Amino acid sequence: MNLTSVNPRTGEAVETSIVAATTEDVARAAGDAAAVARELARTSRARRAELLRATAAELERDVDALARVADEETALGLPRLTGEVGRTAFQLRAFAEVVDEGSYLEVTIDDAGPTAMGQRPELRRQLVPLGPIAVFGASNFPFAFSVAGGDTASGLAAGCPVVVKGHSSHPRTAHETFVRVQRAVRATGFDPRIVSLVFGRGAGTALVTRPEIRAVGFTGSQAGGRALFDLAQNRPDPIPFYGELGSVNPLIVTAQAARERAAEIARDYVASLTLGGGQFCTKPGLLCIPAAEAPRLRALLSEELRTAQPMWSLNRGMHEAYEAGIARLAAAVGEGRFDSAPAEDSAGFAVAPALAWATVTEVRNSVDPLLEECFGPAAVVVEYDNAAELVAFLDELPGALTGAIQAGSDVDDDAARVLDALSRIVGRVVWNGYPTGVAVAWGMTHGGPYPSSTNALHTSVGATAVRRFLRPVTFQSVPQELLATELHDATPVPHRRNGVLTGAADWPAR
Amino acid sequence: MNLTSVNPRTGEAVETSIVAATTEDVARAAGDAAAVARELARTSRARRAELLRATAAELERDVDALARVADEETALGLPRLTGEVGRTAFQLRAFAEVVDEGSYLEVTIDDAGPTAMGQRPELRRQLVPLGPIAVFGASNFPFAFSVAGGDTASGLAAGCPVVVKGHSSHPRTAHETFVRVQRAVRATGFDPRIVSLVFGRGAGTALVTRPEIRAVGFTGSQAGGRALFDLAQNRPDPIPFYGELGSVNPLIVTAQAARERAAEIARDYVASLTLGGGQFCTKPGLLCIPAAEAPRLRALLSEELRTAQPMWSLNRGMHEAYEAGIARLAAAVGEGRFDSAPAEDSAGFAVAPALAWATVTEVRNSVDPLLEECFGPAAVVVEYDNAAELVAFLDELPGALTGAIQAGSDVDDDAARVLDALSRIVGRVVWNGYPTGVAVAWGMTHGGPYPSSTNALHTSVGATAVRRFLRPVTFQSVPQELLATELHDATPVPHRRNGVLTGAADWPAR
Repeated sequence: MNLTSVNPRTGEAVETSIVAATTEDVARAAGDAAAVARELARTSRARRAELLRATAAELERDVDALARVADEETALGLPRLTGEVGRTAFQLRAFAEVVDEGSYLEVTIDDAGPTAMGQRPELRRQLVPLGPIAVFGASNFPFAFSVAGGDTASGLAAGCPVVVKGHSSHPRTAHETFVRVQRAVRATGFDPRIVSLVFGRGAGTALVTRPEIRAVGFTGSQAGGRALFDLAQNRPDPIPFYGELGSVNPLIVTAQAARERAAEIARDYVASLTLGGGQFCTKPGLLCIPAAEAPRLRALLSEELRTAQPMWSLNRGMHEAYEAGIARLAAAVGEGRFDSAPAEDSAGFAVAPALAWATVTEVRNSVDPLLEECFGPAAVVVEYDNAAELVAFLDELPGALTGAIQAGSDVDDDAARVLDALSRIVGRVVWNGYPTGVAVAWGMTHGGPYPSSTNALHTSVGATAVRRFLRPVTFQSVPQELLATELHDATPVPHRRNGVLTGAADWPAR
Repeated sequence: MNLTSVNPRTGEAVETSIVAATTEDVARAAGDAAAVARELARTSRARRAELLRATAAELERDVDALARVADEETALGLPRLTGEVGRTAFQLRAFAEVVDEGSYLEVTIDDAGPTAMGQRPELRRQLVPLGPIAVFGASNFPFAFSVAGGDTASGLAAGCPVVVKGHSSHPRTAHETFVRVQRAVRATGFDPRIVSLVFGRGAGTALVTRPEIRAVGFTGSQAGGRALFDLAQNRPDPIPFYGELGSVNPLIVTAQAARERAAEIARDYVASLTLGGGQFCTKPGLLCIPAAEAPRLRALLSEELRTAQPMWSLNRGMHEAYEAGIARLAAAVGEGRFDSAPAEDSAGFAVAPALAWATVTEVRNSVDPLLEECFGPAAVVVEYDNAAELVAFLDELPGALTGAIQAGSDVDDDAARVLDALSRIVGRVVWNGYPTGVAVAWGMTHGGPYPSSTNALHTSVGATAVRRFLRPVTFQSVPQELLATELHDATPVPHRRNGVLTGAADWPAR
């Protein structure tokens, strides 16, 4: 079956030459990955870093062509998509640095010697790649969370072959990206089987249950992610499933902040809400404001909604879901409590941003899903009476990727209590900022308690994302010459010896 | 329902005053844990280290009484049980050192500044406790993997309240240990609700599905572990389940080693096989020997079996399962291929060690479970013709906690190939040693690919076991004074700043 590529601005579909994978195609891709897994695991860190950098360069070389194709399939706009290719290249190079630096291996050497428990044998521990992994491309980031995105980059950095299931919302973009990845793979002398690309929903489920696949990286909806998570856990041999699912991402405005910066907050909040058509997993979908400031804030927010730029859902299914979602929100909060910009006159999947207003009590008592993610530029605004009510409400919220606070110029106790409450339910707390935009850095966490992630122990963005695809192995009393150089006494990487962590500062130059 | 305490040497049962927990009891214990989780998470590292050390001291103070009760319930013998109390205390102190050292928090600070992707915000990341955890005591280590064992110690080290489900095979030992834990908890001024103890199979399943519980540590059988794993994954909010399940633990004797040290290997192998009545999860249950040396090794091994000390299954159920297991093994390998020591004449759960002999081809073709763990002092001896056949066989084996090699005095290519094959299927490779005995150390890995563990990414023994009960949180642009001291610029722990890892060597004294 040939896939179609649909332009969200017009709804026009063109048939592509890309076909959905059969079960046999998936078996072949997984088998290919398994066939080269051992060889890839043995490649030097320097060579894998070279592969990641070459991939970055291939993407950058063709950034205009890639962004153009992606814009036709996503309507996210050329500036954003050009920037996203750059971010994807930046991310690939960041993982190259992680691999070069080498502390991600967690090399630990305990010399043999006496302890209170008797003689301890010599132990040399490092992390090793899990084996072939499956990566599900996301609809909303056609580059950064897709074929050459963070999961693929961290998987290759770890030394795992990758089978990508491309998103059907941007098949041509996925294919074009894959062509660049394969160029880099060949140019650096790797086996082309280390990365494969398959399409189709059936291919996705087949992939998660293939015995060769040792872990899954997924970014997408809560329903779809949970179904795949269940498949992965119900295998005869369960495998780690790293799913970034839906998240409502509370953003709290303190009373003082609302008094001091209402107009600025309204402007910046709506900008964050509508970024990428409101289709960020970090979209602040639950705005908590002091009830006393609600009338003024509502006027300001409504004005911002009215002046928002045109935006489109990524595909027909999301468009329909968004329209149904805001209708449900409008019905749930009742007449006079729902604000939306005028609808665009468009043949495509144009959407209008929307805000549904409710009190804490109304949200608590609502049988409607006011606390479920509505994918698109919609949010629920919750009016709280005081900090105590707010903190109690935050304690009841489901897990989220992010939580943000707009605080006043004095850091008061209320702000500290909100910070504490947020830190218990999210993976990243943002102070006087907006959660959209996830820096690729050593200190980033993109993940959080369920349902925002299926595994809150790890991040899918930032240096430590590589940890998801590695497991420890300890070599007890094994002669050094049989082990990787990283496990030798003269290890070239930051490591721990007899309990003492030796960082880069006191570690000889590479 | 009152629990009975059964002496494995005699089969005699005495009724205890300990009762199985009701669903309400479990709800109360989980609720208590949740009620104190926030407070425990906020305690200083120094205070948690003090708690761990106080617990160690309480156990050591009463070591004789504890070992005596445990011997009545497990028949593992006073020397072993006295040593196990010591090991448990050692482990508690080891985690106190991990907490003191502080690098387990993975503190990462990225200063704000320009990057190729524009301005990066300030990011401060650390690991935080998951919340209340459930710990399942194991039958075979009534101290080291039970009430005050590794899971409890690493959970408390992480800052998580613990609800222990004590093993019904040693209720009095569990209760007596719990009394000492509670003494330490009170003596160090902690809320007694940070550790609870419940009993009963129903209590175990109720615990895994309680909404307050955020992770599970389990050591036990494959069937029981998988059932609880499934419960944990099928929750509305799935939680991490760290199960150490069954493992066959291959031990390979190379041709050269067999020629050089047959008698020594036979002696040490049977000692490892029968340690603790063969009831170690690291028992080497699959001995691979060169076919050419089989006749000589068989004679030596049989002699060692005959002179083994008396041993007992831990309980009636295990005794029956062992007898059934060795009957199946005997039937599977056929007449003249099964060696066993004479059965003990005993009213209790006495067992005799046994070895079932088969070739690689016979194991491959067997419809019987020659590759499944038989809990007790039994193993399958596999005769291989050459290294190529052996390596191919190892590649087909299920995941295991350990793999061991007895190699000759020359490190030849065959030994290197075996090492490589083992490292792909196990969590710890042992060279010229035996896998029973797991050092509590920074470099230990006790865990491996499924089915030996339900999560091969982590270890349940050694310093990094604490990582299982922690998740990352990033604070973006949050004023330092609102954060834990570990996240301040002048952090007192080894950390990473702007990508550079700073170890203990270049880190100012605490």
